[in-house]
Amino acid sequence: MTELRVGLIGAGRAGRVHALNLARYVSGARPTAVIDSNEEAARRQADEIGGAQVFTDVDTAMSSDLFDAVVITTPTFTHRDFTVQAAAAGKHVFCEKPMSLTPSDCRTMIDACEAGGVILQIGFMRRFQPEFVEAKRRIAGGEIGEPMIIKSLTRGPGLPPNWAWNIDRSNGMLAEVNSHDYDCVRWLVGSDIERVYAETANRKGAARGVDVDRFYDNAVVTLRFEDQTLGTIDGTCPADYGYDARVEVLGSRGLLVIGDVRGQAILEVLDRDIGAVTPVHRTWPERFAEGYRHEMESFVDSVSERKPAAVTGEDGLKAVAAVIASNLSWQEERPVGMSEVMTK
Amino acid sequence: MTELRVGLIGAGRAGRVHALNLARYVSGARPTAVIDSNEEAARRQADEIGGAQVFTDVDTAMSSDLFDAVVITTPTFTHRDFTVQAAAAGKHVFCEKPMSLTPSDCRTMIDACEAGGVILQIGFMRRFQPEFVEAKRRIAGGEIGEPMIIKSLTRGPGLPPNWAWNIDRSNGMLAEVNSHDYDCVRWLVGSDIERVYAETANRKGAARGVDVDRFYDNAVVTLRFEDQTLGTIDGTCPADYGYDARVEVLGSRGLLVIGDVRGQAILEVLDRDIGAVTPVHRTWPERFAEGYRHEMESFVDSVSERKPAAVTGEDGLKAVAAVIASNLSWQEERPVGMSEVMTK
Amino acid sequence: MTELRVGLIGAGRAGRVHALNLARYVSGARPTAVIDSNEEAARRQADEIGGAQVFTDVDTAMSSDLFDAVVITTPTFTHRDFTVQAAAAGKHVFCEKPMSLTPSDCRTMIDACEAGGVILQIGFMRRFQPEFVEAKRRIAGGEIGEPMIIKSLTRGPGLPPNWAWNIDRSNGMLAEVNSHDYDCVRWLVGSDIERVYAETANRKGAARGVDVDRFYDNAVVTLRFEDQTLGTIDGTCPADYGYDARVEVLGSRGLLVIGDVRGQAILEVLDRDIGAVTPVHRTWPERFAEGYRHEMESFVDSVSERKPAAVTGEDGLKAVAAVIASNLSWQEERPVGMSEVMTK
Amino acid sequence: MTELRVGLIGAGRAGRVHALNLARYVSGARPTAVIDSNEEAARRQADEIGGAQVFTDVDTAMSSDLFDAVVITTPTFTHRDFTVQAAAAGKHVFCEKPMSLTPSDCRTMIDACEAGGVILQIGFMRRFQPEFVEAKRRIAGGEIGEPMIIKSLTRGPGLPPNWAWNIDRSNGMLAEVNSHDYDCVRWLVGSDIERVYAETANRKGAARGVDVDRFYDNAVVTLRFEDQTLGTIDGTCPADYGYDARVEVLGSRGLLVIGDVRGQAILEVLDRDIGAVTPVHRTWPERFAEGYRHEMESFVDSVSERKPAAVTGEDGLKAVAAVIASNLSWQEERPVGMSEVMTK
Repeated sequence: MTELRVGLIGAGRAGRVHALNLARYVSGARPTAVIDSNEEAARRQADEIGGAQVFTDVDTAMSSDLFDAVVITTPTFTHRDFTVQAAAAGKHVFCEKPMSLTPSDCRTMIDACEAGGVILQIGFMRRFQPEFVEAKRRIAGGEIGEPMIIKSLTRGPGLPPNWAWNIDRSNGMLAEVNSHDYDCVRWLVGSDIERVYAETANRKGAARGVDVDRFYDNAVVTLRFEDQTLGTIDGTCPADYGYDARVEVLGSRGLLVIGDVRGQAILEVLDRDIGAVTPVHRTWPERFAEGYRHEMESFVDSVSERKPAAVTGEDGLKAVAAVIASNLSWQEERPVGMSEVMTK
Repeated sequence: MTELRVGLIGAGRAGRVHALNLARYVSGARPTAVIDSNEEAARRQADEIGGAQVFTDVDTAMSSDLFDAVVITTPTFTHRDFTVQAAAAGKHVFCEKPMSLTPSDCRTMIDACEAGGVILQIGFMRRFQPEFVEAKRRIAGGEIGEPMIIKSLTRGPGLPPNWAWNIDRSNGMLAEVNSHDYDCVRWLVGSDIERVYAETANRKGAARGVDVDRFYDNAVVTLRFEDQTLGTIDGTCPADYGYDARVEVLGSRGLLVIGDVRGQAILEVLDRDIGAVTPVHRTWPERFAEGYRHEMESFVDSVSERKPAAVTGEDGLKAVAAVIASNLSWQEERPVGMSEVMTK
Repeated sequence: MTELRVGLIGAGRAGRVHALNLARYVSGARPTAVIDSNEEAARRQADEIGGAQVFTDVDTAMSSDLFDAVVITTPTFTHRDFTVQAAAAGKHVFCEKPMSLTPSDCRTMIDACEAGGVILQIGFMRRFQPEFVEAKRRIAGGEIGEPMIIKSLTRGPGLPPNWAWNIDRSNGMLAEVNSHDYDCVRWLVGSDIERVYAETANRKGAARGVDVDRFYDNAVVTLRFEDQTLGTIDGTCPADYGYDARVEVLGSRGLLVIGDVRGQAILEVLDRDIGAVTPVHRTWPERFAEGYRHEMESFVDSVSERKPAAVTGEDGLKAVAAVIASNLSWQEERPVGMSEVMTK
Repeated sequence: MTELRVGLIGAGRAGRVHALNLARYVSGARPTAVIDSNEEAARRQADEIGGAQVFTDVDTAMSSDLFDAVVITTPTFTHRDFTVQAAAAGKHVFCEKPMSLTPSDCRTMIDACEAGGVILQIGFMRRFQPEFVEAKRRIAGGEIGEPMIIKSLTRGPGLPPNWAWNIDRSNGMLAEVNSHDYDCVRWLVGSDIERVYAETANRKGAARGVDVDRFYDNAVVTLRFEDQTLGTIDGTCPADYGYDARVEVLGSRGLLVIGDVRGQAILEVLDRDIGAVTPVHRTWPERFAEGYRHEMESFVDSVSERKPAAVTGEDGLKAVAAVIASNLSWQEERPVGMSEVMTK
């Protein structure tokens, strides 16, 4: 079997996770190029994985024959064009979430990959994280009966980069942080979202003088699914206490909880006035380390065996649409049906 | 100190909890009468607490001089009249939640008790449950910073009685099951609710042929508080897996979780295909045993020391109003401001 | 039914727990006398329970007709004489653990109570604590198969009183702190201990200049039961982090764990460098609040229904003997069979 | 950097773990030979890792120039000779635990590797497992004060192979299952064991007619360390409920617990009569997946950077000696000092 040669578009934090996984853990693939307009970052990444061609320009890189697939981890607003370009060059595409800024951009990406005959996979790594996989297996197997209520949350520490604060450049926190939740609830419930209602607040951002009409750092979203399941998604960023991602699914027969605030298999008790302390998950690369490895293995498998991607462009599009609907909801203070936004 | 003599109006399940607590655990008070139109139930209850006068008629009971206070645990639609009657007779009132069916009925009760110079306390026992008390202390003390998101849920096993299925007789599940959540989130956050949005579903009820337009057994409610805090409440009844009541409060500095699905200090591991098993809470009297005792002690203290009730009629009214607003929301498919319903 | 009148011998910390339970929570009994050579302590205790006769002298108290039963919570070395005296006066005896200093003293107490026709119950309240009761039910019901290994620990904060540091006055920490473990493992396994081996250390005490040959503040004991079950008991006092009592029973089919370091149904996460914090149990009265109530109810039931005590003098004797054997073991650096010490 | 070529001696279960890690996850090394007298097993293993030379005879393999290091996973009684042979051939040695059958055999291995100028590392992977690493860091940093009591347990499902049942061929369960505990407690406490006392029982084996004088499937061992720390180790195999490895360290300032019976970040509640269920760890390769990877990375680092192994032959020897002492203890029913057995 020939190894799949991968060009990494983006040498930031997510790019590094994929780079290291491709270099160390994923059999059948290896990173051969790093493309980033920040040459120093690109070179540092190339060095860390034991060497790879460095490009500062995507056009040049795409026209080379150094890679068969790309992993796109640049800001959301670049995803559409890089994907279209890669597809035109016959290169398979692994694109980080959020897929793009609008459903119609997502559609363009899907069409381009179909036309180019290349695989398109979206980076919803939770679908590959062992406890999520096991949960899906149990729900689909009917263990908890029919899903009735699903609640998913993601909270992360640290300041998002500037473009992610700008709702017009990124769709804001619900896109940057909660895209995973929107995808996950659809996948776990096995039904599409019918309508959403969102409330948001600007708590820490306000103090920093950002535009309070366009920015939010807390959100709570109510979901109604096509099969009558109800749900909530909530997000907060920055949440100083760590990285927290949990899902709770109530079915007609029982309850299933994925994840735990207590993130590590160690417990320390120092003081009876404090209590028993268990370390939390600190970062998303640590929380979802296995998911990131397995999604990349799955992508390489799809390419080498010419089988459909495990997470498709349609999945990516639906998550983008749900975010758009949620933003419309809080801006217009009304529930928004998904049908309203699917072709925006 | 003279003992407070208490007349128990209602000999059902909640009545029994209060009866036993008054008989065994609350110093300074004792149950002297049991009033229930079901004479056999009243007599059984009287016997269990070592004897008390039995009445089948509230009017007769009220005109007696056998008790100084009443504990009302009859169906919601009876609360207003029994309270007004008790207040007129100069008897203090402990009234189970939900306080009444409408904010204006609640107002009538408040006014009657003020006019009668009697204490009125509403049965939100979570405010007296040790872990809730401790949580309130920590939040009010600023330990987690300013509250940003609060999520509260209550799920109970078993079928509600018929009148509780009838939204016109009870305001439905959000009133009967989730009243506690509506009160608790206000109390913990320290701010009033500004508006609500609710989604409901009729999952198990539909199979039983109940009126699907008026009935629901699953609900998810989004909350916006006056101080910008966001929240969710969700309820499910019947939820076969046990009685479950948990709250999660995210503050600007940290997270606080009240309650645990794992209800008992015992763990059993039998089979590696199943895993580690911890018993859940099975019933609300077991889950909130301490809260029920302490709220009654608090009521007796208020009466004997002539100090205001720890949970007032205003608190009861606000919970009723929030339920009314939530029901309006799912029926009209729109967010509903609290100001719309406060005088309904 | 006539109420059982109880004389409290000892107005210390354990005495207060029983006094309050008798005054508030145990139907069918009430404390009528408090006996303590420290008159101020006795009076304070009498006041707290709403009044009781105060005695500073046991002889005088015993000759009065003010109580039908005694609850003995004075230091261990006084238990034998007070019990014999009470039995001679026809008064039932509830005696705190450890029962006495030697098996032969225990035998004297048992004989005296039999001769006096009075009930003798030893204060092993864990047998009445809900999660221990449930564990016993499961083990006896065969849920985990046959017990193979049992591990029990008790650790407590705070300095023991002087007499408890003196091995000749109290048998030391294994008696004062771990008596409960010795009783509990016998009860849970359903078999008697055959031999013990103990290692001890003097860690914090050494710094205080106590006699290191006679004192220890850490102990680990290996147990072999008559039915081939193996076990360990460990104790530490003072253990600054709180009060901790847990048991783990491994059976041929599964594992059962009683208790949890995480003592309260609240969790707080403040800082990702610390983690998720759950309060521990701080004190034994809080940890075993229910056990203390139920054991006293059981004692009152035994007396009023003239049925055998739930925890007998034989149980008390066997715990004392196991402590004696353990002390002999670490002093002589060899395993010690229970048969060696049963009549010491 | 040249890749380290590794010959795998043993194609059983532990061999497979190392083979896959070397093939997929450990940069700087690759498996080039599989040696097993069972040719089919060797071939299957070679195929699974994408090809490697197969040998059925260690002599032939050793004389080849196909590998620079060996990973020995054959039964314990073969470790000495294979290590000596490898050292003589100038090949570095990674040897699974238990290191050998006697301290003097361990000494022979250490001497041979020193004479051959090759690295010798023993397979105590817990020292590389993240939560153990973190625990060591905290203890060494003084977070819990001075260790006072350490308790370590290992229990595993499944029947051990025949040679492991034979105490003369393997030193029995304490060697095969609990070697890790003996190493871990020394490492975590930072002091050597001074003496041990062991009790054992033959519970499930007896039913199978094995020699009850030489066999045991349950053991409890008391430890006294040179620095006065006390400890226990317990082991059970087979323990049907899963693979369980936990350590609890009590220090003068606090408590630290490593590991959790609840092994996976998923919780399911189906039935209020059962309760909340969390899957346990099922197997040791799953429980210590990360430890196995990191220990092999550490070995490769030691070789390539010519630095001492992280787990030395002396560590292996001390664990073997402690097992020997424990076996002597239960056979002679007395505590056994480590000095008695260090040169056996």
